[in-house]
Amino acid sequence: GSNLSLEVLKGTYGNGDRYSYVTKLPDGRYLRSSSLYIRDANGNTIGCLCINTDITETLKFEQVLKEMNRCNINNMEDEIFVSDGAKSDSGNIQEIFGTDNKVAVCDPVYPVYVDTNVMAGRTGEYNTVHENFDGVIYMPCRKENGFLPELPSEVPDLIYLCFPNNPTGSAITKDELQKWVDYANKNGCVIIYDAAYEAYISEENVPHSIYECEGARTCAIELRSFSKNAGFTGVRLGFTVIPKELVRDGVSLHSLWARRHGTKFNGAPYIVQKAGEAVYSEAGKAQLKDQVGYYMRNAKLIHDELAKAGFSVSGGVNAPYIWLETPDKMTSWEFFDYLLKNANVVGTPGSGFGSHGEGYFRLTAFGTYENTLKAIDRIKSL
Amino acid sequence: GSNLSLEVLKGTYGNGDRYSYVTKLPDGRYLRSSSLYIRDANGNTIGCLCINTDITETLKFEQVLKEMNRCNINNMEDEIFVSDGAKSDSGNIQEIFGTDNKVAVCDPVYPVYVDTNVMAGRTGEYNTVHENFDGVIYMPCRKENGFLPELPSEVPDLIYLCFPNNPTGSAITKDELQKWVDYANKNGCVIIYDAAYEAYISEENVPHSIYECEGARTCAIELRSFSKNAGFTGVRLGFTVIPKELVRDGVSLHSLWARRHGTKFNGAPYIVQKAGEAVYSEAGKAQLKDQVGYYMRNAKLIHDELAKAGFSVSGGVNAPYIWLETPDKMTSWEFFDYLLKNANVVGTPGSGFGSHGEGYFRLTAFGTYENTLKAIDRIKSL
Repeated sequence: GSNLSLEVLKGTYGNGDRYSYVTKLPDGRYLRSSSLYIRDANGNTIGCLCINTDITETLKFEQVLKEMNRCNINNMEDEIFVSDGAKSDSGNIQEIFGTDNKVAVCDPVYPVYVDTNVMAGRTGEYNTVHENFDGVIYMPCRKENGFLPELPSEVPDLIYLCFPNNPTGSAITKDELQKWVDYANKNGCVIIYDAAYEAYISEENVPHSIYECEGARTCAIELRSFSKNAGFTGVRLGFTVIPKELVRDGVSLHSLWARRHGTKFNGAPYIVQKAGEAVYSEAGKAQLKDQVGYYMRNAKLIHDELAKAGFSVSGGVNAPYIWLETPDKMTSWEFFDYLLKNANVVGTPGSGFGSHGEGYFRLTAFGTYENTLKAIDRIKSL
Repeated sequence: GSNLSLEVLKGTYGNGDRYSYVTKLPDGRYLRSSSLYIRDANGNTIGCLCINTDITETLKFEQVLKEMNRCNINNMEDEIFVSDGAKSDSGNIQEIFGTDNKVAVCDPVYPVYVDTNVMAGRTGEYNTVHENFDGVIYMPCRKENGFLPELPSEVPDLIYLCFPNNPTGSAITKDELQKWVDYANKNGCVIIYDAAYEAYISEENVPHSIYECEGARTCAIELRSFSKNAGFTGVRLGFTVIPKELVRDGVSLHSLWARRHGTKFNGAPYIVQKAGEAVYSEAGKAQLKDQVGYYMRNAKLIHDELAKAGFSVSGGVNAPYIWLETPDKMTSWEFFDYLLKNANVVGTPGSGFGSHGEGYFRLTAFGTYENTLKAIDRIKSL
């Protein structure tokens, strides 16, 4: 069917057998072929056995399905790097970027994103007036903007986003996240998307992965955890997805991370990998669903009861955290002391997550239902 | 006994009770004391109950023992950082040093030391003529110097040493290692000492830890592994020791690493920590001794039989590796191909460990005795 057999007949091609190669015919059809050369006793090619399969129609069908699905899950399997947890990955990922890259983070924010960039020398000095680091683009997330960051006017190189959010418990809709993906693709930014809490999403229009957004494969790295969905905090397992299309300055970030990961890390323990496998079994999935449901019952209890008691609360719907505005204009730490002394309840002061966390307080659903009930009763009777 | 009771009587001291404080008497004796103040109904100090213990002699005895032992093991407990393995530590440790620091490594060398410094930007470009990186001080270890590095004439900031050595299997005596410690202290270098293979030491005068050398606490970091002594390669556990006395430019390296370790790492899995604990149990110690003995029988077999067969071999006495000079001036890879094709035996080409590993070949004792016997027989009948 192809030119190859003509070449064999002319004696111009006969070096070796070829398997599973694709040729395009003059009429536009595509053939997948394997060719075995038949040789005489002197080793001269005297013939050729070719098996050709016309893949023209299946290729078209693949394209139709690709457009319909718009999700390259099969390609993504070897874009996953298993690690000893999202904490390590979220701290180490900045190593593959230049120290002159500009970083944008939400404020409040999970401190590891900022601290590791400070340690790498990617920021300026600590600014005692603003109580944060010079040279970092902070994106305030407060009540006024529904705890969602706004697209920064100064274009960063790296944008850390975490949704559902730690500490505010806020979630982002797919349409809103799409704006970030478009912004990143337009401006050449890389989004480091921490989806550690995706298992707690309960609403329909909230994406579980940034790759649900069109174009995310050319701008986003995603971090995933087993700590929150499967209680692996002390077991240590996570993974990072870096699509092969994600290229900056002609360099594949996938390759850079593969090199970093292979050179400075030796894999998660076998026994932990086995535990990770169990997470995806039918029994494991059922247990996870129960566990997430258990904590989300706590979250709903904290949210609803404190709202009823007159507190200003958010989060808790797509996340295990409730973000509480401290009453009577107390600072985060004043409220911490007040709560500890008068209700014997502890939480996390919002100011620990950044200067725009001041005046807020994080409550967690990661406790027993009984203790959660008790704590809420105590807070309500203050 | 001390001035304090006089002060109480004079009314000049009575603020609070004091426990376990030390005072020196005019006659040179030392007292450890606790004082409880006795107050009247108005809170005025009217008396003092003091318990004094003369610790003069026990202090002297401590000093005698310190000089005799010359090993601060008690202080070292909180100088140990547990990690997910020596591979990670040996790759990450360079992060606490400036990128302008000059690195010295043995050649041949465990590639992680070099690669991680290259990735951090601490070296020059790859030099295709010398087949190594510019800006790195390579210390050749070849047959001529007994596979031991010589003190470099250009003073480095960081010196990576690994003894017993991977890949050469060579060991260093305590006297020889002392020279490195003295050199480092004199010149302000930091030694990163990889003692991963210490369990395989069989000779008396070979140190199991660099801290056996006088002055190592002010110049050396030690990396330890559970992979080699306890077979934890797939379990992932290790630890790094950074003495608190190790200070450079007024900065404690212990503090820097504590910050790095706490921010970018979240601990070894609980279940792996438990396995690590078992290593130190009586049963665990006995099993480890057996296992190390098993592999060292392999090492001795490989070494002695190949020597008898006319090969030039070293290592295998204090290490699980045998370092073989390739016969007939074959390159390392030529010998690899030769061995694979003619004996169906694989090993590691020495050139993979650096340009001075060319012409050498690493054989490992980490196999079954039966397979080791079989491989040796095959090599001998070449």
